[in-house]
Amino acid sequence: MGATRARIAVDAMGGDHAPAEVVTGAIRAKAELGVDILLVGDPDQIYAATPQPGNLDQLELVPAEGTIAMDEEPLSSLRRKPKASINVAMDLVKRKRADAVVSAGHSGAAMAAALLRLGRLKGIDRPAIGAVFPTVIADKSVLILDVGANVDCRPKFLEQFAVMGTIYSRYVLGVEQPTIGLLNIGEESSKGNDLAVRVHQMLQENPAVPFIGNAEGRDVLSGQFDVVVCDGFVGNVLLKFAEAVGEAVLNILREELPQGLRGKAGTMMLKPNLRRIKQRVDHAEHGGALLLGVAGIAVISHGSSQAPSIFNAIRLAKEAVDHEVLQRIQAQYQKVAMPAADGE
Amino acid sequence: MGATRARIAVDAMGGDHAPAEVVTGAIRAKAELGVDILLVGDPDQIYAATPQPGNLDQLELVPAEGTIAMDEEPLSSLRRKPKASINVAMDLVKRKRADAVVSAGHSGAAMAAALLRLGRLKGIDRPAIGAVFPTVIADKSVLILDVGANVDCRPKFLEQFAVMGTIYSRYVLGVEQPTIGLLNIGEESSKGNDLAVRVHQMLQENPAVPFIGNAEGRDVLSGQFDVVVCDGFVGNVLLKFAEAVGEAVLNILREELPQGLRGKAGTMMLKPNLRRIKQRVDHAEHGGALLLGVAGIAVISHGSSQAPSIFNAIRLAKEAVDHEVLQRIQAQYQKVAMPAADGE
Repeated sequence: MGATRARIAVDAMGGDHAPAEVVTGAIRAKAELGVDILLVGDPDQIYAATPQPGNLDQLELVPAEGTIAMDEEPLSSLRRKPKASINVAMDLVKRKRADAVVSAGHSGAAMAAALLRLGRLKGIDRPAIGAVFPTVIADKSVLILDVGANVDCRPKFLEQFAVMGTIYSRYVLGVEQPTIGLLNIGEESSKGNDLAVRVHQMLQENPAVPFIGNAEGRDVLSGQFDVVVCDGFVGNVLLKFAEAVGEAVLNILREELPQGLRGKAGTMMLKPNLRRIKQRVDHAEHGGALLLGVAGIAVISHGSSQAPSIFNAIRLAKEAVDHEVLQRIQAQYQKVAMPAADGE
Repeated sequence: MGATRARIAVDAMGGDHAPAEVVTGAIRAKAELGVDILLVGDPDQIYAATPQPGNLDQLELVPAEGTIAMDEEPLSSLRRKPKASINVAMDLVKRKRADAVVSAGHSGAAMAAALLRLGRLKGIDRPAIGAVFPTVIADKSVLILDVGANVDCRPKFLEQFAVMGTIYSRYVLGVEQPTIGLLNIGEESSKGNDLAVRVHQMLQENPAVPFIGNAEGRDVLSGQFDVVVCDGFVGNVLLKFAEAVGEAVLNILREELPQGLRGKAGTMMLKPNLRRIKQRVDHAEHGGALLLGVAGIAVISHGSSQAPSIFNAIRLAKEAVDHEVLQRIQAQYQKVAMPAADGE
């Protein structure tokens, strides 16, 4: 694929600011990234939301009807709405008309649509959702997976997450020598619940995983790890907790900083600095979620995404296509004899 | 007990700022709270660290030799050092010379010493460590348990955590009508891993638990729940993550706020407001950990505790003694026929 242009199917109808912000991000990506965009959604709404509709000429419009709302149950809604934008986008990948999907819609629906339409990669028992978090080191992020697709995991699922996380970190997030950690409650290999103790040993023995040890809660955002694997229950709790803590801190700042006359004056002076702080703290402005292990590339942007996040998500999708991550994961499972998971 | 003065054994040697800050906190507690203090530690070091040794006359000194360092393995160290301050303090409770223990030392060692010396309460399968977190609502906290004592839990353990958490919230933390939540990845009763689904149903059916439903990661610090129960693996990850996030945010503030000339000037003007923000964000200044389910009252203050935290921990211990929480937990397990845990 390397030599051809990546073709990205963008779900124009997914997210709080769809279609306007999605379309803006997609138009910019087309202009700057050298990708082909297939914009999936309701053409009337897309045209109405585009200030300069002439820009749409560069994009291919693929009609779809409706979308899956955030409060809808994924599976039944996907079945009831076969022409929903996320279904149509996944079908484009299935029919090899596109190489990847980008959506800011319902992440559970996107995962379910990917599974129903594209299926799993060979060798992968359970796909995972990976979330990219900022760390305390500016410009360094950490990929955490699984953040919610699999709430009860066997050891080998986490081992597969680690293999896929390594490949995504290297080829999509651009980390040359990624370091992989296992979320746990202590540093020693004997620490943790049954699952963690068993996974620790498997990761140590797997040559495809540059495992550097356990990551405690306090290490997750330290910048020391490029990838942290965990089961989807813990990962989801952590993801939602992190988002809420970010918001909570910003609320405390808003409440306390302007207290008193000096507070008001000082806060005025600090406006640009506070904006930078908000950007660093606010998870919504960062990355997005990657679906790993489905037989297609899919990047799920945050529901509150505006054009820059959509642009960024398209960039991630392009990296994944250009660097052939799916083929690399497949190759891993053909050449490496995976250590058999005990208890299986 | 209600009419008599609570007798609190204070581990003078535990924590980063022991014995000086511990002694200062204990002296203040003696003066202000109407409690009797048994100060456990090395008398020479205690006297040397006390600016006005005359203040020690009001306290009873109980000699001990050594302490368990933060990097020591709890069980073997406790056995090797029978006269370590935490062992001596627990023994005072065992011999009914004290009603409660307060320590800022190694929390794992405190838990192990409590189990070895005092044992479990009748009806409690596994004691838990409860941590008090600040919430986004000023002056409202949330008790999270277990944060690390039990990494693999059966459903009935979490049910017992909920019963004990309810009693501690009401009688120690002073919440008249506590609301209890189960840490989970969705609101619906069907959501979660096997453990969460089963515990959800047990909590709904338990009349001793004012259960209001699942708490997602984003709800933990919302102030909506007074108690959140979870297994010790997830709880420990969350606790350490929360502490690190607090520090990370304060670091970002320190880095970004004073950028540029206006930034420096504005930051100067905001000094008192920033101090308040630090207090609200910094977990170390809050609560501490409660050991729930052991046959004695124990409050573990943060290792970095200074005198105000020690004072606060002694106040919590006094509340627990005055309100007879152990007797209340026991009563719960004598009068309520607990629903049998399936899978046992």
